[in-house]
This record gives sequence, structure tokens and C-alpha cells, in this order.
Amino acid sequence: MIEYSEASAEVRAVFDDIMATRKTDTINNFWKALARHPATLRRTWENIKEVMAPGALDPLTKELIYLAVSATNQCQYCMASHTASARSKGVSEEALGELLAVVGLANQTNALAAGYQVKVDEQFQATK
Amino acid sequence: MIEYSEASAEVRAVFDDIMATRKTDTINNFWKALARHPATLRRTWENIKEVMAPGALDPLTKELIYLAVSATNQCQYCMASHTASARSKGVSEEALGELLAVVGLANQTNALAAGYQVKVDEQFQATK
Amino acid sequence: MIEYSEASAEVRAVFDDIMATRKTDTINNFWKALARHPATLRRTWENIKEVMAPGALDPLTKELIYLAVSATNQCQYCMASHTASARSKGVSEEALGELLAVVGLANQTNALAAGYQVKVDEQFQATK
Amino acid sequence: MIEYSEASAEVRAVFDDIMATRKTDTINNFWKALARHPATLRRTWENIKEVMAPGALDPLTKELIYLAVSATNQCQYCMASHTASARSKGVSEEALGELLAVVGLANQTNALAAGYQVKVDEQFQATK
Amino acid sequence: MIEYSEASAEVRAVFDDIMATRKTDTINNFWKALARHPATLRRTWENIKEVMAPGALDPLTKELIYLAVSATNQCQYCMASHTASARSKGVSEEALGELLAVVGLANQTNALAAGYQVKVDEQFQATK
Amino acid sequence: MIEYSEASAEVRAVFDDIMATRKTDTINNFWKALARHPATLRRTWENIKEVMAPGALDPLTKELIYLAVSATNQCQYCMASHTASARSKGVSEEALGELLAVVGLANQTNALAAGYQVKVDEQFQATK
Repeated sequence: MIEYSEASAEVRAVFDDIMATRKTDTINNFWKALARHPATLRRTWENIKEVMAPGALDPLTKELIYLAVSATNQCQYCMASHTASARSKGVSEEALGELLAVVGLANQTNALAAGYQVKVDEQFQATK
Repeated sequence: MIEYSEASAEVRAVFDDIMATRKTDTINNFWKALARHPATLRRTWENIKEVMAPGALDPLTKELIYLAVSATNQCQYCMASHTASARSKGVSEEALGELLAVVGLANQTNALAAGYQVKVDEQFQATK
Repeated sequence: MIEYSEASAEVRAVFDDIMATRKTDTINNFWKALARHPATLRRTWENIKEVMAPGALDPLTKELIYLAVSATNQCQYCMASHTASARSKGVSEEALGELLAVVGLANQTNALAAGYQVKVDEQFQATK
Repeated sequence: MIEYSEASAEVRAVFDDIMATRKTDTINNFWKALARHPATLRRTWENIKEVMAPGALDPLTKELIYLAVSATNQCQYCMASHTASARSKGVSEEALGELLAVVGLANQTNALAAGYQVKVDEQFQATK
Repeated sequence: MIEYSEASAEVRAVFDDIMATRKTDTINNFWKALARHPATLRRTWENIKEVMAPGALDPLTKELIYLAVSATNQCQYCMASHTASARSKGVSEEALGELLAVVGLANQTNALAAGYQVKVDEQFQATK
Repeated sequence: MIEYSEASAEVRAVFDDIMATRKTDTINNFWKALARHPATLRRTWENIKEVMAPGALDPLTKELIYLAVSATNQCQYCMASHTASARSKGVSEEALGELLAVVGLANQTNALAAGYQVKVDEQFQATK
């Protein structure tokens, strides 16, 4: 991992923007690890800033969607960091519980749809 | 697949409840396939009714979470049926676009976290 | 795909062994596709013959395990070919239904364990 | 995690049923974590009791199927807890070894089927 | 899908850049689908241009890595489009065969490592 | 895990071949774990020797492909051991960074292709 004190100017510029945007003075391990490849660090941070910004979906809903993917992929780091992020955005215990209930259900029915080799209904073909 | 006309009383009871709850007179292929094992049909339907009901999260947010899992798992049937379901609940094109942008981003950063073998930060340990 | 009539001697030798072992005169598309890389064709067939042979687990139980993995991975070809294989080995509709119920359940609880970031209990550490 | 001593009556009722059903006086971390959302705790436990009960497949075969899914999904908690569970049901070292050999093989051939884009054979279409 | 003739100026600008960069006059379905959310279209294209460009790894090696991920994820569209892309870059049948052999092997040993709950060796801790 | 000192002759023969082939005097935990099922140990080692040998693709490219699969599957052990292996083969920090950038990108676009339910273009049908 690359600490701020040993980072290049290119990496420091991203670290500075992360801290300014998130109003914090710490850099998570994820960013310190990505700093080993500065282009990936910069591109990933720019993607996150753009994608997670408020829009038709609010930032908390986006965090919940992020958690849904991370639980499905068994990504331990992502669950830890984004559960913390969702809590800092004020998510309730009940909302987190319902989120994981839907995630569990969807993983179950995804496997059942594959297991039963279900064909897509004609009326769903036109609704993409 | 089991059609209504050939279904047992046990299966018909579930089919009837699905149609009544969803205010429709058609049964999707998913349910017709599950009907081959009536206990799975009944249990899955009861789970869905309970988990997808309005609560701390509204039904449309739950559909979006469901879609996030299904895209991550490459479940074609689930994407087709639940995109239709999200549309019937009034989701905007912009919201669907933002949903998939977050899903793409999360799958990317999940892989990066695994690839860089990032250790969970101490401050995240306490926030489960 | 490589058909028998156009196959090299190396590929034909594997095709012949597949047909002799399985007491059939057809070669599935999976093997015709793998035949494009004869070393992969041969090695995969040898692995399958060894791993799927009767042992502490009977061949039908091994087919069910194979189906459990394939449904979890959303592998459509594998579900189609190994469901046929399980049926040819005499599996009952009820057993297939219970198999998929367990597969659905396990995918659900796998996601819940990740979602809740559950720590492994001490008493499970010693039982690997 | 919610310990028994701090649990609500609703959670204690599930904990009591788990201990009575499994003839044990300990509650695993999985259930203590799920207890944060009592509805998920109750529903998940009811699903497990119903799905894992003896039927056309015996409980040990169901444990093996559960392990097959969990290894495929890289679910560490699930592997630890259900390997312990399979051992408590008397599984042999040889059977566990054969199980994992099939799981490894299926993950290999699943990837090969996707990699070679193998089309489903006509004779498999009718055997769902 | 959004065709060029019905696309907005923002979408046409990306379509034009794709065709100019790839020296072609057709737009693949992937881009026509993403065009429904222009920000995702633009961001994804910019990411691909940057990540897939020649660097320490040559473009063909990057295509092979892309195929390895896509086969693992069972992404049918991605396998079809990037196999075509690898062929257009001159990959040999033997190289494609070896690629898929490694992909199959890695999926097998990944499942075995999870199944046997293998602990990371101390000497690997320092080599991230 | 089975240590060399307690291993059967069958297991020792494989351990000896691993150490001789890799010019080392240590056996990784992966092999010690697989040694509990000697047939799996032997078969897996033979597969690896055959698949990872130099061919149309050089051994380092094969390591990178292996890492791409392992990051996608969230296999922590595999990332740790094969990152060490890639480093011992002389991979540069820049090449590892580009590898993970492609892996992140592919996981993102795989999810987008599934999320947008993109149909395979006709021109890709013929290029398998």
C-alpha cells in the first residue's frame, strides 16, 4: 500500500480530492492499494465520483445497490467499507435488513431460474 | 412447465394467489416451472410476498436491488422479468441507467479489491 | 465444432472412448467444441471419467452435485446436458425438486453470510 | 451480533427452536447476525428446516449439495459451518474428497462450456 | 437499442469516435444498448479506450484477459464479441485453446481452495 | 493439512515431483490440503503441469490469466499464491496494474451486457 507521505504528486492529487470530496482526513486501504497503479487510482475515483453522485437515484439508494452487488460477489472488503458508508449516510437497521433479505431472495430465485432452465416469457421480450 | 389447466389443487391455490396479488390473469414461466415441485413453488412465492412487500424500503427500490443481483449473476430470465416489473412500477429510463451504472462500477471495484488483496481498514471493523 | 468425419486420429480416439464408455453413438456438442484443442478434449474427458466414476459417492449423487454447481454458475449448457444425464440415471422428479430447493437455499444463505459479514465460529475452526 | 441474553422474545423463540431442533445449547454466529432483522431470522430458519429435512434426498446428501454451492461461491463461513455439519452427520473423508473433486470439475467444465460458447444439443431440449 | 439515425448529438459523438478508433463503420449492439444512458455510454467507452490501449501488456494479451473474465462470469455476449475481437487481432486457434484450458483450470482450483478452506501461506503474505 | 512427514507414499511422490519441478523445498498449503484426497492431489497437479507449461502462450501470460479468473471469483488464497508466482516469474508492477485494470473493466462490462440484455450481433455468430 502507498501512504500519502510516500506518494507521487499524481497520487497525492487524487488522495487530496478524495479527502476534500468526502470531508475526511483519512484515506482507506482500497485507495492506498490502487495507488500502486496511478492510472487505475485516478480512473476508478473519477468513475465513482460520477456514478455515485445524486441523480435520479439518491446516494443512499446507490449505496444499497452497491452493497447488493458486493454481498452477491462475496467481496468482504466492499461489504465492510460500504456498510460503513451506508451507515454514515443514515441508513436504518431495518432498511439494511430489508436490503439483505432482497439480496438473499434474488440469489435464491436466480439459481432456481437457472436450475429449472426457465424460458423468457414472450411478454418480457419487448420490455427491455 | 405446468399449465393451470393441468395443475393440482395445491399448485392452483398458489397460482390463484399470485394472480390475485398481482392483479393479473397470467402466470409467468418461472412459476409454471417451479410448479413441478409444489413445495418449492409455495415456499418461494411466500418468501417473495413477504420480502418484496413495502417496508423501510419501497417496492421499486426493492426491484432495483433485485435487478442489481440478477445482472451480477448473469441471470437472463431474472433480468427480463424484473426489468418488466420495474417498468410496470413506473421506473424512469434515467433511474434504470443509473442503477446499471452502479452495478457495473461495483462489479469493477469488487474485482479490484480482490485483485489488490485489500485488507479491511480498522475503522470499518466496528461498523457492521 | 469438429465432427467425427473431419476429426484427427487423436480426436477420434477420444470420441470413440466417449461413445464406448457411455454406450451411445452420438457425441455431444460440448465434446465437438473441445475437439478444437485436442489436449483439452483428452484431459477433460480423462478427468470426467476419473471423477464421475462410482466411489464413496454413487454416480447419481455426483450428477446432483454437478447440477448444483451449474445452476449456481448460471451455466445453461451444463444444466441442459446434466439434467438429461441425471434423468437417464433414473433420478425422480421429487429428487430434482429437492436438489434445486437446496441450491436455492444455499445461494440465499451464502449471500446473507457475506452481507452480514459473519465471523467463523471458533468451534468450526478445528473441523476442516 | 445479538446474544440470547439481549434478544427480543421474537428472536428468542427462533433461537429456542434452533437449539431444540438441533439438540444443542449453542447458537452459531450466523443466527446471531441474522437476529438483527428478526423477520429474516425467522424466515431463513423456517426455509432451512423445510428444505433440509429428509425427503427423496437424505440430509447428508443435502449437506453435500449445500457445500457444493458454497465452495463455488467462495463463501468461507458457509464452508466452515457446513463442513462441520457434514462431519457431525458422519460423512467420510473419502466422500468429502469426492464431493470437492466433482465441484472442481464442474466449475472447470462450466467455464469451458461458456468459453467455447457451446450450443445446447437438440436432444437435451426436451429433457428439462 | 438506439440506432445512429435516431441518436442524440451526445451519443453520435461517441459512436463516431468508436467507428474512427476501430476503423469500422458498424456499431455493435453493446454500444447501441448503452446509448440509452448516454453518460454510461461515454464513460464506458472512455474506460475501454484507456484500459485496452497498448502498454506493459499488448492489446492481444488484454483481449485474452478479458475473455478469461467473461468465460468465468458466463457472459455470452462478451464471449461472442471478444472472441471475434481476439481473432481480428490474429490470435491462433492454439492460443485460444490454451487460454480456455487455463481458465478451466483456474476455476477448478479456485473452487478447491475454497472447498478445502486453505489458509494463505506466510511466505505469500509479503508478496502482494 | 497433511505434512510431508506424515504423508503416504502416494502423496510423497506428488510432493517430490512438485518440489523437483518448481525447484523448491517447500510445499504450499494448497497441496497439503489436497493431500487429504490423494487422487485429487495427483490429478490436480498433473493438470497444472500440463496446462501451465509453455506453449502458444508463455508461462507468465498463463499466470496473468490465472490471476484474472481468481480476482473475478474473489479467491483470496489463489490471488495470494499466484501473485507471488507471477512476481517470481518477473512480472512488472505496471503489468500487474494493467492486468487488474482489464479485470475490473471486464467485470464491469460483463454486468452491463447482462443488465442491458444485449443480443449477440449477427456478425459475431460465425466467429466462434
